[in-house]
Amino acid sequence: MSFGIDDLPVRDELRGKSPYGAPQLDVPVRLNTNENPYPLPEPLVERIAERVREAARNLNRYPDRDAVELRTRLAEYLTDTSGHQVGLANVWAANGSNEVIQQLLQTFGGPGRTAIGFEPSYSMHGLIARGTGTGWISGPRNEDFTIDLAAAEKAIAENRPDVVFVTTPNNPTGTAVPPETVLALYEAAQAAKPSMVVVDEAYIEFSHGDSLLPLIEGRPNLVVSRTMSKAFGAAGLRLGYLAAHPAVVDAVQLVRLPYHLSAITQATALAALEHTKTLLGYVEQLKAERDRLVSELLATGYEVTASDANFVQFGRFDDAHAVWQQILDRGVLVRDNGVPGWLRVTAGTPEENDAFLDAVRQLKKEQSA
Amino acid sequence: MSFGIDDLPVRDELRGKSPYGAPQLDVPVRLNTNENPYPLPEPLVERIAERVREAARNLNRYPDRDAVELRTRLAEYLTDTSGHQVGLANVWAANGSNEVIQQLLQTFGGPGRTAIGFEPSYSMHGLIARGTGTGWISGPRNEDFTIDLAAAEKAIAENRPDVVFVTTPNNPTGTAVPPETVLALYEAAQAAKPSMVVVDEAYIEFSHGDSLLPLIEGRPNLVVSRTMSKAFGAAGLRLGYLAAHPAVVDAVQLVRLPYHLSAITQATALAALEHTKTLLGYVEQLKAERDRLVSELLATGYEVTASDANFVQFGRFDDAHAVWQQILDRGVLVRDNGVPGWLRVTAGTPEENDAFLDAVRQLKKEQSA
Repeated sequence: MSFGIDDLPVRDELRGKSPYGAPQLDVPVRLNTNENPYPLPEPLVERIAERVREAARNLNRYPDRDAVELRTRLAEYLTDTSGHQVGLANVWAANGSNEVIQQLLQTFGGPGRTAIGFEPSYSMHGLIARGTGTGWISGPRNEDFTIDLAAAEKAIAENRPDVVFVTTPNNPTGTAVPPETVLALYEAAQAAKPSMVVVDEAYIEFSHGDSLLPLIEGRPNLVVSRTMSKAFGAAGLRLGYLAAHPAVVDAVQLVRLPYHLSAITQATALAALEHTKTLLGYVEQLKAERDRLVSELLATGYEVTASDANFVQFGRFDDAHAVWQQILDRGVLVRDNGVPGWLRVTAGTPEENDAFLDAVRQLKKEQSA
Repeated sequence: MSFGIDDLPVRDELRGKSPYGAPQLDVPVRLNTNENPYPLPEPLVERIAERVREAARNLNRYPDRDAVELRTRLAEYLTDTSGHQVGLANVWAANGSNEVIQQLLQTFGGPGRTAIGFEPSYSMHGLIARGTGTGWISGPRNEDFTIDLAAAEKAIAENRPDVVFVTTPNNPTGTAVPPETVLALYEAAQAAKPSMVVVDEAYIEFSHGDSLLPLIEGRPNLVVSRTMSKAFGAAGLRLGYLAAHPAVVDAVQLVRLPYHLSAITQATALAALEHTKTLLGYVEQLKAERDRLVSELLATGYEVTASDANFVQFGRFDDAHAVWQQILDRGVLVRDNGVPGWLRVTAGTPEENDAFLDAVRQLKKEQSA
């Protein structure tokens, strides 16, 4: 046996674990990580090169620690798209929404505290909780993957968590959470003990409904988290952000690593924010493709979960992992999130979606043959 | 009173705290954060723009989660400059050495565990310990800021820490730690309990001595951490890395946030690594300027701590903060790290250093007038 992780003095809870992450396979059609299939438009690529060149000339200096210009532009984007006025003081940014969530858990969770999510949901919430020493509570959902409000309120009242995660649209199910439900969960969380409610809106731009951003007004314990990975087609950039009461933005600065956001990241994100209109045009195309995936899957005889995101959960399968492999054998990589009976497919380009639909239609035919 | 941090349900230990970070003041000569004063050479700036343009064309996809190309090039750099052969499997990279240290503490420290550093030293070690729930032990130094080996061994034997930090050259004092001392501390740490020793070599390229990298051979619990912020003149890039036994690299991947290192960061760092020779030329200039600062400060009647870094600690002052302000009043920003009696000045360009030396010579004259 060669010397390995367990021969090091690692924390006990890490022993026997393996790193999180979808398999990175070399497959013609990759519809497994909810990436935007549209490369950035060439004028934006040029603008990024231009802004990065400028930033590189000053790269020997530390970046703006407070990312003032970037947060100001993100606030404008949020104001423009939600109709709710937010400013610099309401917005914070980090290396992906994962780092935003890590900072929130370091501030409001951590050892001796707990967080709850309603599962299945974005599995990083629980993993980042573990990484920050926050106890994790798996809250319930209905059979159709909507949140069972009475059961959720009961779980909050009983467990009195310090942080409540509400993901809308939910990943991996695509399910949107109605504003009334979020408000009721917020009230339940405040009644149990003053606790933070984090509304993860990573996929909100693809939703039929509106952002819950206006709910931060008068609710200092409510945080909305966002990302540029999906709607902005910039998964490679790692830029997540949040909007909340200014006190929340002040608080996460107590735990953020100083100069966490590089000058290059800030420059690239600023360039992308200059091209919002074009990028949101791609979002409209993807919403149409998402709706086509839903109707074609239904027409082919699959079940689907109602989706407000850039992906669709489909099933049901006695052995979802076997079906995942059968689809992969046909050159299409989808995601097995470990939800029994279900798989998840990202809305790609029309051609990619056709390849996926061909594969699952074939499978259906073979089954009934 | 307006609603503030303490009105939120933040963790108790964060109440009343303020964010870490040097004052960002608009001053003609900034010698306070150990930045490299030389902007990147224009051909490198162009190469960054070129590589980033290429990366931006694929920005809709997640970055290489394992940063294979970058880690391979970093391993080559370490092999070339230390004469000790390391490869991809020995190297890990993250957003600044702060994130490297955070990942190490999440893996080997954390709640119920402790870390020790010999202070004064890089204050982020203790702050990141706090942020990861790791208990912090302040170990001793001699009056001249070298490590008192007997006292350090005693502190390790008594406290049995899980992580031992050794910063060489030390920040803010500039003091190099001899390899024998590091080896003795490693042995002491293993005798107390199997624990990790993290040798922070952020400033090693400026040292009169060699990197301790070869010590990782046969010592799986020894980690060397590095940064591109100083020698590579890329503080704005936020690229830190470590070299260690492959099991350590595997272990930190259990806690790293997936896709933590953006495609843009990877592209920029790869460009910089193509220009190593030019950048290490600047390092030679800075070493000469650092030595000039030492001799001129001594000639002017100040005390200095022997420095192997790109900065010099000088004193002594009855009221170091008052002197910091007097130097600032003359247009030069140095750093008050809170070490009683001492201030720290970064080696800048010859002109910047002249401005600093003029200011402190003036002060001396006024004192004796």
